[in-house]
Amino acid sequence: MGEFELIRRYFDRGPARRAALGIGDDCAILAPPRGMDSLAVSSDMLLVDRHFFADDPPESIGHKCLAVNLSDLAACGAAPLAFTLALALPTPDEAWLDAFSRGLFQIADRFDCELVGGDTTRGPLAISITVFGSVPGDAALRRDRAQPGDDVWVSGTFGGPAWAVQEIRAGRRSGLPVALLDRLTRPQPRVELGLALRHLASAAIDVSDGLLGDLGHIAERSRVGMTLRADSVPVDAPVAALDDPIRLACAWSGGDVYELAFCAAVENRAAIDALSARFGIALTRIGSVEAGEGIRVVDARGLTLGGLPRSHDHFGS
Amino acid sequence: MGEFELIRRYFDRGPARRAALGIGDDCAILAPPRGMDSLAVSSDMLLVDRHFFADDPPESIGHKCLAVNLSDLAACGAAPLAFTLALALPTPDEAWLDAFSRGLFQIADRFDCELVGGDTTRGPLAISITVFGSVPGDAALRRDRAQPGDDVWVSGTFGGPAWAVQEIRAGRRSGLPVALLDRLTRPQPRVELGLALRHLASAAIDVSDGLLGDLGHIAERSRVGMTLRADSVPVDAPVAALDDPIRLACAWSGGDVYELAFCAAVENRAAIDALSARFGIALTRIGSVEAGEGIRVVDARGLTLGGLPRSHDHFGS
Repeated sequence: MGEFELIRRYFDRGPARRAALGIGDDCAILAPPRGMDSLAVSSDMLLVDRHFFADDPPESIGHKCLAVNLSDLAACGAAPLAFTLALALPTPDEAWLDAFSRGLFQIADRFDCELVGGDTTRGPLAISITVFGSVPGDAALRRDRAQPGDDVWVSGTFGGPAWAVQEIRAGRRSGLPVALLDRLTRPQPRVELGLALRHLASAAIDVSDGLLGDLGHIAERSRVGMTLRADSVPVDAPVAALDDPIRLACAWSGGDVYELAFCAAVENRAAIDALSARFGIALTRIGSVEAGEGIRVVDARGLTLGGLPRSHDHFGS
Repeated sequence: MGEFELIRRYFDRGPARRAALGIGDDCAILAPPRGMDSLAVSSDMLLVDRHFFADDPPESIGHKCLAVNLSDLAACGAAPLAFTLALALPTPDEAWLDAFSRGLFQIADRFDCELVGGDTTRGPLAISITVFGSVPGDAALRRDRAQPGDDVWVSGTFGGPAWAVQEIRAGRRSGLPVALLDRLTRPQPRVELGLALRHLASAAIDVSDGLLGDLGHIAERSRVGMTLRADSVPVDAPVAALDDPIRLACAWSGGDVYELAFCAAVENRAAIDALSARFGIALTRIGSVEAGEGIRVVDARGLTLGGLPRSHDHFGS
């Protein structure tokens, strides 16, 4: 099977709907978004042993590589439009490609996000996706608009994926609950929530590296500080049973979460609680934004906790 | 040096000019192109030992990874706007990053193409770029509009890069002429030519895999055939001195060329010759488009040559 046959068989699904010109030319041509919409663009590269394991089901690798990119659109309040896929593969393994493309298109279809182009080449498995979304005018959710007095919120639960990675690395994959493995390998991007938060949140980010580090980006770019309550972050079931230091580290520093962390004015509390009911996603207040700088995590007695790493840093120690 | 410091130091060049929101948020936000322009999008992933060698100067790796993407815009007649960069690096080597980013931004600046976002992670060296360009209305050059009777043209010269790769693989890098090495490691995308061909060419492609294979894409998508003259393709100096079979294989099947191959009506010959003078790029007629299908390469006596491989196929034998 050659490169073009591979593309035809697994990735070309006929005439483009959204692009004026889709797969099979030098570029995809995207018509200008309707009205005065702006285009949101994000790129993420996923590598084996960093973002997924070689023995993960290829279907969930296909799911995850688009999910993490859709999560960036969610954090900007952008509606998914299209994506490109650059894929390096050691061999054109048909069973792998079949399952990978099935997982990829399942989530692509769910969020109406069309594959419009890309590139395949032979090499160590690497998957690079660039995703496009639309945002009306200047309604994008950004990192730099948090205001002192805002509440700090998170969607969903934390800590499970980091704990799962640790268990897998220690050779205990088979003992992991299916739901926890699913949480790691099939993250659910909060696209609808991001769209609904456009006019409610002052700043937002998706938690990919770790809650503390990612909230740190909002604090730095908004030039504010935050005080957060240590035990306010909802954690996944197996993590809740762990001892204090490891539980807190999973919750606050664990990556691969793909939930949204966002800031919002106090008067929007009821509207945000209503979104929680509407989407069936836990939305939890975990602290507040303050004038100043830096992020403090305090325990039940109001004492500052030290020693929590900010997050996973790909080039850090 | 951590991931964010790495981005800040080598890739963040201050407030975005072209994007409403640039590096440092979840997505880049691109304002809608002016007027009724469409957006051309292309992604290419470059891997060590496939698209460049580990001991290539990092400055030319930076150049080449954007150049090959700009070449796709050229083939569509699109004007460069912006790009994203996803970069996997084994270690954050400062000297390497310094030279790589210098080479990258030199060509980015030359074509006024702004880095608006991306991703860095630790892994085997892999570089994935998605590039954005603008095309007015439906003026994009495509592969599927060649007409019987059209001339087939190529820009520049062929064969040198394929010959250089072969020599390097055989351990004879030091003996290569500098100009030939430059031809391989610092390809010049034909962006201005692509823009000028918008209303002159009926179909175009950039030659990345091999002339015969890439013209085959035009023929297939336009549902036409072509007859091409074997010795009409201008070849790079060292290739011209080689014997027939290897010279012809380099010229017709050699990849990494990044010249344009295009079809144009006979009445546009003078206008295209004028472009050659204007840009100082050889533009050569190598054959013609016919009704039917398939590509024939004929020798001076009009006899069909067999045995020429179509191109380099990343997953072929």
